[in-house]
Amino acid sequence: MKNYFKTVIFIAFLSLATQTFAQEQQAPPAPAARPAFQMGNAVVSPEILPDNKVIFRLDAKNASEVTINGEWMSMGAAEKLIRDDTGLWSATLGPLAPEFYGYTFNVDGATVLDPSNAQIKRDGSRNASILLVPGKESELYTADNVPHGTLSRVWYDSPTLGSTRRMYVYTPPGYENSRKRYPVLYLLHGGGGDEDAWTTLGRAHYILDNLIAQGKAKPMIVVMTNGNPVQAAAPGDNPVEPVQASFMASAGAMGSGKFEESLIKDVIPYIKRHYRVLAGRKSRALAGLSMGGMQTMNTTQNHPGMFDYIGVMSMGLMDMTDMGVQADQDLDAKIEALKKSGYELYWIACGKDDFTYEGVTKLRKKLDEHNFRYIYRESTGGHTWANWRIYLSELAPQLFR
Amino acid sequence: MKNYFKTVIFIAFLSLATQTFAQEQQAPPAPAARPAFQMGNAVVSPEILPDNKVIFRLDAKNASEVTINGEWMSMGAAEKLIRDDTGLWSATLGPLAPEFYGYTFNVDGATVLDPSNAQIKRDGSRNASILLVPGKESELYTADNVPHGTLSRVWYDSPTLGSTRRMYVYTPPGYENSRKRYPVLYLLHGGGGDEDAWTTLGRAHYILDNLIAQGKAKPMIVVMTNGNPVQAAAPGDNPVEPVQASFMASAGAMGSGKFEESLIKDVIPYIKRHYRVLAGRKSRALAGLSMGGMQTMNTTQNHPGMFDYIGVMSMGLMDMTDMGVQADQDLDAKIEALKKSGYELYWIACGKDDFTYEGVTKLRKKLDEHNFRYIYRESTGGHTWANWRIYLSELAPQLFR
Repeated sequence: MKNYFKTVIFIAFLSLATQTFAQEQQAPPAPAARPAFQMGNAVVSPEILPDNKVIFRLDAKNASEVTINGEWMSMGAAEKLIRDDTGLWSATLGPLAPEFYGYTFNVDGATVLDPSNAQIKRDGSRNASILLVPGKESELYTADNVPHGTLSRVWYDSPTLGSTRRMYVYTPPGYENSRKRYPVLYLLHGGGGDEDAWTTLGRAHYILDNLIAQGKAKPMIVVMTNGNPVQAAAPGDNPVEPVQASFMASAGAMGSGKFEESLIKDVIPYIKRHYRVLAGRKSRALAGLSMGGMQTMNTTQNHPGMFDYIGVMSMGLMDMTDMGVQADQDLDAKIEALKKSGYELYWIACGKDDFTYEGVTKLRKKLDEHNFRYIYRESTGGHTWANWRIYLSELAPQLFR
Repeated sequence: MKNYFKTVIFIAFLSLATQTFAQEQQAPPAPAARPAFQMGNAVVSPEILPDNKVIFRLDAKNASEVTINGEWMSMGAAEKLIRDDTGLWSATLGPLAPEFYGYTFNVDGATVLDPSNAQIKRDGSRNASILLVPGKESELYTADNVPHGTLSRVWYDSPTLGSTRRMYVYTPPGYENSRKRYPVLYLLHGGGGDEDAWTTLGRAHYILDNLIAQGKAKPMIVVMTNGNPVQAAAPGDNPVEPVQASFMASAGAMGSGKFEESLIKDVIPYIKRHYRVLAGRKSRALAGLSMGGMQTMNTTQNHPGMFDYIGVMSMGLMDMTDMGVQADQDLDAKIEALKKSGYELYWIACGKDDFTYEGVTKLRKKLDEHNFRYIYRESTGGHTWANWRIYLSELAPQLFR
């Protein structure tokens, strides 16, 4: 009996220790041979070396080929792992630039996660194992020893969409200890994502924690909604009532403007009633990426004067007629109305390799025709969370000034 | 350009659709041959059939053997998947009893998650793919169409443990819309777990939502801490400062009583200051499983009269001297003091096959010697979350009556 208990506790704490080894830069180099403690899944992977090379390991005794694909590689690329005589496969890659990467293994044709790595990120229906290479560039979204805001999963009624829906609300450090009121950033995810995306993939809460601690951003509330009109919450947290989400219905819903309507009618009033917010346009920002960028454009064009700070990331004027989404015939009039309404900031960001680049160029041309004031930030890279994390870290300091 | 965008959106919504198919009971039967839409990971797995048989599928063209182990099987058991001529492996298992299961595949010796299943649960450093078989028994913790409480990740200062630490706080539906005060249940996880465990694995927030909606439990606040003194937060959310968590240090910390001290000195005062709680012992409950059960016993024995409701799950009087944890020499006096202090409920629950069963029997014998009033609930099964979910659903209705 004693031994059973001891074993359970031993495994439990071994797990914690392995976890720590795997994720800390200070991890000791792994022994060359398989050490005695490598029971079950206790293989150490990934192991980040001091020079930012990374060792990946997988126990697969009977596999004939094991490869790895990581977000630092091109899509579909693969590096081979080498088998030792115990059936442990490994590869040492890099050095890798400091970044929050996803990666997967392929074992004899099956694309799988790293079983030794407890940390996983979900992007819609796809998961990847997490590799956080520490360094200056990844510091902005690393969980650091600074005061942390509270991140809450809140359910609100949406009469507009006919469901009770879930959103994430970040309240800044100190919120609970004061009577102060705060400005609000509404932050929208892209197609295929959900209310988890901006924290799990975007690490928005840590970006805000760090910027606020450094005095670079004003303390603010950040509201992260689920932008899919047909989905009440992320998979697994979606109430059991089946969502009628065929592909065409979803695409249609995306172009329906219904989410945008619910943002105005349901979300913003809920936040006003339940949080200590500063009222008025000067304390209200709306930003989004990709599909969320489209929703940001739609919402702000249809409600001029409502948001003084507007951020459009990786989205422009796209031809979506094939998907049943018609171009807005009143676009010119709406841009004029938004211009006349006055606003503090209209910020557009896009990567040079982003597939929306052409659409962003069209958007800028259209805005230029109207002498519409905006700031354009062009980055390297494409349609990636690496870029969106950077964009948020650059946008947040410009808000509510 | 148009096509790129269309493809991305298509994949995004296809992902959503696949997700929905995979997780809803109403999923249509999968076609026998691989349909055209099965690009990449879009294989449907798991697929729950109307009779609760479940089809598992994995794309692994070059594998020589694929097996599955699920929590409905014994540990280490394996069922083989069969390969079709396209390299898609599958097995139809069950029918399975309604339950929230974990499962993993083994591909040529590598133990991996199901890449078609976005839903994953983490137990310490181990992950498993989630299979939620719907039915009467699993209804108690299913995300249902009832009012939902808010689940917040809150950071608090712990001078006792020398760190800023994270906990989950559940506030019941209606909390935000009232000025009412609520009783508080402090709910502790087991060894190897962390502050995520009671929601991710225990689904405590949905259990409370459902019990409250049915009028079976009183609306209450539930506070779920991280019970590992050396860990400020779950892996990945733990601030970058490396935790000095060697195995012996961890085991020592577990027996140090430091977490229990921090619960009294740091956590409870924080909750009092920041939430609308009903003051006093009548509105305070403490419960925990395994290591958390030990912490519950320690805390309530050292603070008689502080908690009127006490729940000890899957834990008793264990001999832990080998781990450097000495038996409490004052146990008899402490039991007498707790008895004299008065309390409403001392609830002990254990499974017949639990490895702590002998320790629980010892605990009951000891309490009987003192004519100490308690309720004992013996279940089938062992040291499992299936049991702890049931225990919580039975304990919560008895609280604050």
